[in-house]
Amino acid sequence: MSDSAFKVLEILERSDAPVSGETISDELGVTRSAVWKHINELRTMGYEISSSQKEGYRLTRTSDRLLPYEVHRKLRTTFVGKKMRYLKDIPSTIGAGRQLCSESEAEKLHGTVIIAEQQTGGVGRMGRAWVSPSGGIWITIILKPHVPIDRIFMITMAGSIAVARAIRKEFDLGALIKWPNDVFIGTKKVAGLLQELSAEADTVYYSLLSLGVDANVSINQFSPELKDKITSISAELCHDIDRAAFLARILNEFEKHYLLLESGEYEMIRQEWKSLSCTLEQRVDIRTPRDHFSGDAIDIDAFGALIVRKDDGTQERVVAGDCFQQ
Amino acid sequence: MSDSAFKVLEILERSDAPVSGETISDELGVTRSAVWKHINELRTMGYEISSSQKEGYRLTRTSDRLLPYEVHRKLRTTFVGKKMRYLKDIPSTIGAGRQLCSESEAEKLHGTVIIAEQQTGGVGRMGRAWVSPSGGIWITIILKPHVPIDRIFMITMAGSIAVARAIRKEFDLGALIKWPNDVFIGTKKVAGLLQELSAEADTVYYSLLSLGVDANVSINQFSPELKDKITSISAELCHDIDRAAFLARILNEFEKHYLLLESGEYEMIRQEWKSLSCTLEQRVDIRTPRDHFSGDAIDIDAFGALIVRKDDGTQERVVAGDCFQQ
Repeated sequence: MSDSAFKVLEILERSDAPVSGETISDELGVTRSAVWKHINELRTMGYEISSSQKEGYRLTRTSDRLLPYEVHRKLRTTFVGKKMRYLKDIPSTIGAGRQLCSESEAEKLHGTVIIAEQQTGGVGRMGRAWVSPSGGIWITIILKPHVPIDRIFMITMAGSIAVARAIRKEFDLGALIKWPNDVFIGTKKVAGLLQELSAEADTVYYSLLSLGVDANVSINQFSPELKDKITSISAELCHDIDRAAFLARILNEFEKHYLLLESGEYEMIRQEWKSLSCTLEQRVDIRTPRDHFSGDAIDIDAFGALIVRKDDGTQERVVAGDCFQQ
Repeated sequence: MSDSAFKVLEILERSDAPVSGETISDELGVTRSAVWKHINELRTMGYEISSSQKEGYRLTRTSDRLLPYEVHRKLRTTFVGKKMRYLKDIPSTIGAGRQLCSESEAEKLHGTVIIAEQQTGGVGRMGRAWVSPSGGIWITIILKPHVPIDRIFMITMAGSIAVARAIRKEFDLGALIKWPNDVFIGTKKVAGLLQELSAEADTVYYSLLSLGVDANVSINQFSPELKDKITSISAELCHDIDRAAFLARILNEFEKHYLLLESGEYEMIRQEWKSLSCTLEQRVDIRTPRDHFSGDAIDIDAFGALIVRKDDGTQERVVAGDCFQQ
């Protein structure tokens, strides 16, 4: 979107009454036809603007898209989301992130947020498909982390905390974290995270943290099997939410917790994760590529691994895997 | 190299006396001019073949290149090096490996070895330059490891053990491993390793293990500063070595130790690494991006981190960094 279109938008937002084309052209020092061009540009971005020859232009509804311009306004970060890429319809934000990292230095991309209105080939953990219709929040954050490599997947913990806290603060819904990287409301999944890493032992080249949140997503569009397991924020509240404000809140929360990691406050992140967990003190059924067992989830260790007390009394440290709660 | 050229090579290798073109053409059922073509093909690959109208062809010297054909003959592996790519002159084998992994499934590339005769843009740890003249062994092994992600950098340990053992067995030189990933003879470096990882928490997409060994490398070509710190196998032995046989030995050793990792024998790898270490029980000076301290290297832990007893008596666990031995 052009800078001038933003300025037109600001003028319309300031005013409750319609604003004439002449007023706008005077204020910005542009021609009437330029004003008309910017109005149309705003309309293609999803803003509803009424116009009448007598009264002028009036913003009747803000865009329902997840536009960087709208997110920026609520952002209180120093680097996360300072640069954004908005893509209407792409296979996956993680693919777009990988592409960017192969083209330029990760240092320069640090904090960049890639937003997709919808993903046609969204991916979950272990290459599984991730349904990503419009109305959700599908983003990837590009990071060049200054975090030791054995702590690197704590970034997922920081992300999970950010999503759960944002849901709690913004909507007063009791979101909790399910190990390893989902956020639940009650017994249903509302968000998932996925972190990708490119590294050598000494240096993390880059890491991509992807978040998917079912924000304004109608649950009816999912298959019957998924419908019982998934919820969305709009389904919980019975109305649509302001996704831009909510995403800004997630990014604000994420930056705060990410910076704790960079300053070595691992124990703080661990404790906060624990306080938001719905997995601890539960019966769990664990499946990894090598193993399958049940037990009680008793703790999460200093690196994010789940500690499970098996029925024979021995303890197992689970670094990664699927966790089914009973 | 064509299959027929291989067959011509085999005939020449079998015979101490010259072999006539007619004998070769009879044995292979090809024309005399085809034989002549294959002889020339072998010559372009670095084999020296004398020819006289009276007596015929004679192999006077095997190729001094690091040809897959020559490596394969000594290989006793089940998957490492079963596929090889030989490149005369490329920026880096690790770059070529990355490219391959972006083009096809890592599963299908598992064990592939990329060999460069020389690298024009060789890289060491943390993006440092790595001088890679012809005469050395510059390879990258592509792996799709079935090793838990917190053990993944133990693959570098398996690689270091393989190089040190191959030098010891093949040449009876007292090679030792310097933490984190170099191989030394006496006080001088003879080889270095670098491992790259592409992963999410649950799945390792691929890992690239790169080895650089100063095999038949003249030390005089290095800068005065490097010359004091680097040695080569040919410099230690005062004669050139058979690089192909040596590389086959490294790959044989590597596969054996890699398979130990895949079957969970971490403690075995750790103990063998320790028995070959020149870092343990030494005074060390450690530099990481965050820290700089001196102390005694007292152990390596179950994940490959160096345990250093600092002068104030406290212990530090060093996951990655530079280690200067006094």
